[in-house]
Amino acid sequence: MSDGKHFTLYSHVGGPNGWKVVLALEILGLTYETVYLDFKTGEQKAAGHTKFNPNGRIPTIIDHKNDDFVLWESNAILLYLVEKYDTDHKISVTDGNDKFTQLQWLYFQASGQGPYYGQLGWFTDYHPEKVPSAIERYTNETLRILGVLDSVLSKRTWLVADKLTIADLSFVPWNELALTRVLTEEHGYNIEKDFPALYKWHSAMMAMEPVRKTFETRKAVFAASKRKE
Amino acid sequence: MSDGKHFTLYSHVGGPNGWKVVLALEILGLTYETVYLDFKTGEQKAAGHTKFNPNGRIPTIIDHKNDDFVLWESNAILLYLVEKYDTDHKISVTDGNDKFTQLQWLYFQASGQGPYYGQLGWFTDYHPEKVPSAIERYTNETLRILGVLDSVLSKRTWLVADKLTIADLSFVPWNELALTRVLTEEHGYNIEKDFPALYKWHSAMMAMEPVRKTFETRKAVFAASKRKE
Repeated sequence: MSDGKHFTLYSHVGGPNGWKVVLALEILGLTYETVYLDFKTGEQKAAGHTKFNPNGRIPTIIDHKNDDFVLWESNAILLYLVEKYDTDHKISVTDGNDKFTQLQWLYFQASGQGPYYGQLGWFTDYHPEKVPSAIERYTNETLRILGVLDSVLSKRTWLVADKLTIADLSFVPWNELALTRVLTEEHGYNIEKDFPALYKWHSAMMAMEPVRKTFETRKAVFAASKRKE
Repeated sequence: MSDGKHFTLYSHVGGPNGWKVVLALEILGLTYETVYLDFKTGEQKAAGHTKFNPNGRIPTIIDHKNDDFVLWESNAILLYLVEKYDTDHKISVTDGNDKFTQLQWLYFQASGQGPYYGQLGWFTDYHPEKVPSAIERYTNETLRILGVLDSVLSKRTWLVADKLTIADLSFVPWNELALTRVLTEEHGYNIEKDFPALYKWHSAMMAMEPVRKTFETRKAVFAASKRKE
């Protein structure tokens, strides 16, 4: 099933959290086969997936070089990948205290950025009725998160230890979605002007080759999935 | 300021994430002084706190025995406390793979339970208008989270490695709030009947002496704060 690859990754063509894991796999040069689950037919909540991940959400990975060890929750996966396979510390820290600062930002991403941006997406695209006050709430929370990041990044280049780590990378897929789909010039936002340090940090990561390649792949598989509909 | 204690903890009388940290401090027998921030006057977002925590939320700890190291995000704090001060592994695992399963559940708590229960609380108590469809959404998500936990706990006693860990404890404060304030018999819910494994697990932790003591303290400081209003 893994086609000889190191990992099987259960993911989704559009979901940011799956692409977060792909970023790390690409940067670390690890091989993987992606299984894209079809949310429209509920594949993520079917037994074929929930036997691995009882939460029925993506991503889930299986490490075929560690006795088929199964792990879900994207940031737990990032930490697993660097602990086991980033021995050169390409995208992770070494110092004891820095490890916890790296964890802190990964929790801020998982408990702040992801849920708030996700709720904004929900009330914008999927909620059964239009609720302007809910959209306003989650737009404001999204801008607040961008403000927290901008305030910190105005004083330093990377979130932890003066180097690019998984803590920085974890913010890329949701920020990419927010900046290109919601907080756009067309909707009256100017992120480069209002959050210059955040914008510079995000753009620097988007320009890196493995990141560029990952988003190109996402665009291609997303377009292919739309053609099938 | 820390009054000779090991830690200073910035917290709030009612906020579940602060009490989560207290649970671990109590079980590990670590000394701490709590600074309760007044959310009504915005103390959590004032410079006295944001100089430590730019997110302006609680909890934040300062470890006075580690060169005043500052850390925020409750589950990053739990992981820090066990890594540095749970050398007997009273509430943490030792095995390599188990550490990542422990992380996985801590991320599920932080990105699933906390945000969804939190949004339910927001739309129930604080949102400027009543939005029944939003309350319904977050009630359903809260029940879904309980269902995921119940399905796993019907096959095992603890979430990781057959022992109580911070992964289990991290769910206690938000579940306590949901089970006593929202999903009550008065509102037509019977959690003991519908989620028996979850209920047994939660009740077992609530009956532990340091947990009981923590919730008694919370009740007392919460009541004292109400008398001051």
